[in-house]
Amino acid sequence: MRTIKLTLAYDGTGYVGWQRQTNGVSVQGVLEDALSTIDGRAVTVHGAGRTDSGVHAIGQVASARIACAHDERRLLRALNANLPSDVRVFEVRVMPDEFHARFSATGKTYEYRIWNGRVVPPMLRLYTWHVPQPLDMAVMQQAAQAIAGEHDFAAFQGSRSMTHTSVRRMTSAGWRTGADGTVVFEIAGDGFLRYMVRSLVGTLVDIGHGRWPPEHLARLLETGDRASAGRTAPSPGLLLVRVHYPGD
Amino acid sequence: MRTIKLTLAYDGTGYVGWQRQTNGVSVQGVLEDALSTIDGRAVTVHGAGRTDSGVHAIGQVASARIACAHDERRLLRALNANLPSDVRVFEVRVMPDEFHARFSATGKTYEYRIWNGRVVPPMLRLYTWHVPQPLDMAVMQQAAQAIAGEHDFAAFQGSRSMTHTSVRRMTSAGWRTGADGTVVFEIAGDGFLRYMVRSLVGTLVDIGHGRWPPEHLARLLETGDRASAGRTAPSPGLLLVRVHYPGD
Repeated sequence: MRTIKLTLAYDGTGYVGWQRQTNGVSVQGVLEDALSTIDGRAVTVHGAGRTDSGVHAIGQVASARIACAHDERRLLRALNANLPSDVRVFEVRVMPDEFHARFSATGKTYEYRIWNGRVVPPMLRLYTWHVPQPLDMAVMQQAAQAIAGEHDFAAFQGSRSMTHTSVRRMTSAGWRTGADGTVVFEIAGDGFLRYMVRSLVGTLVDIGHGRWPPEHLARLLETGDRASAGRTAPSPGLLLVRVHYPGD
Repeated sequence: MRTIKLTLAYDGTGYVGWQRQTNGVSVQGVLEDALSTIDGRAVTVHGAGRTDSGVHAIGQVASARIACAHDERRLLRALNANLPSDVRVFEVRVMPDEFHARFSATGKTYEYRIWNGRVVPPMLRLYTWHVPQPLDMAVMQQAAQAIAGEHDFAAFQGSRSMTHTSVRRMTSAGWRTGADGTVVFEIAGDGFLRYMVRSLVGTLVDIGHGRWPPEHLARLLETGDRASAGRTAPSPGLLLVRVHYPGD
């Protein structure tokens, strides 16, 4: 038995999310099916991040234990031959047995994309949040500066969250303009609560619309007051860009 | 009655093409349905280019005669409210009555996108042609230099074509690398034969794979020998970028 690390990308539009569920097709499910076909036995995969329904990835990482003796190149080809075209494996690596996609990860980078114009280009409709009203990027950038560092993100998590602590350390967070004309929020940190990125973006957009001053976000990080946080931005804008491991 | 000019974008994936047909949903069809709903009577639209099934557009132009008195802004909103999200109107302009999207056009610009790598990113799968084998971009660029100018493109048209002449004038043609990592062929000219861009790209890719020397394309323009032209590149890579009109 060997442990493998898979780096993969997916268009989350047609999936109930990463995690296997009874009510629809999951990315974990199609990946486990493909690996089980190749390995000739039931294979379980562990993902670094449990992306929600409609969320996309260009750098998700998964680990699995397999019996078959294919080399990395052949495994990559066999996997993509057995996966639907909206899920693609970019790299397969044989790892030391102690490697685990989730527990070995030291952090993640996410991006959130907004189309800030009257009409969304059709080719971006599944990969952006449409915000037609003008955004004040300067105050959104100013507000985002409060995010880097260690904070209690209690105000920015799903209401049914059951993690024992909502303290997380972010290494960077900020806005830029994408080459395709989107407005992009990029955030990197050691861990993320459920809905955290989408909830931060919702609050930042409310600030960009002048509903709150830029200091509002810093105040929410101090008070943990979920009721004063903005709406949760919709899932199609969110993209898991990279999972970080020691020695990357 | 007024004549209007619509500038529109669409994801061609789910359509039988621009033109209304009996065997599926067309872009012309959904546009005529939306305009007819707004105008309260049957409206016919004329498109500048009849894109084929699976071909996309970011700058298609259509014209129509309408009775309703809405101003341009309100028409734009009403149209997008009545169209599916994979077809979007970006601009509505009231034009002199003699304006016709097709007959008034002086030229068009197309792009063709290739993903030249082992694995296609899922978010580009519907908008690119996957060419996994390495391409020699230098010889493809060299071959493309023969295209600008007036030529008989008989070797690069659909076999059932019925146009009275296959002579067209191209103002530019060449390759570049897109911001998203795609390899992009851009071509502008006064008019295009059916399958012409896709057939030029198929031949250029064969040249990029060393099947023919770069001079092969110039020779095909001289001889009109369709049998020696390359395959027709698949429709999802093709994008109608812009329609040119006098005084643009």
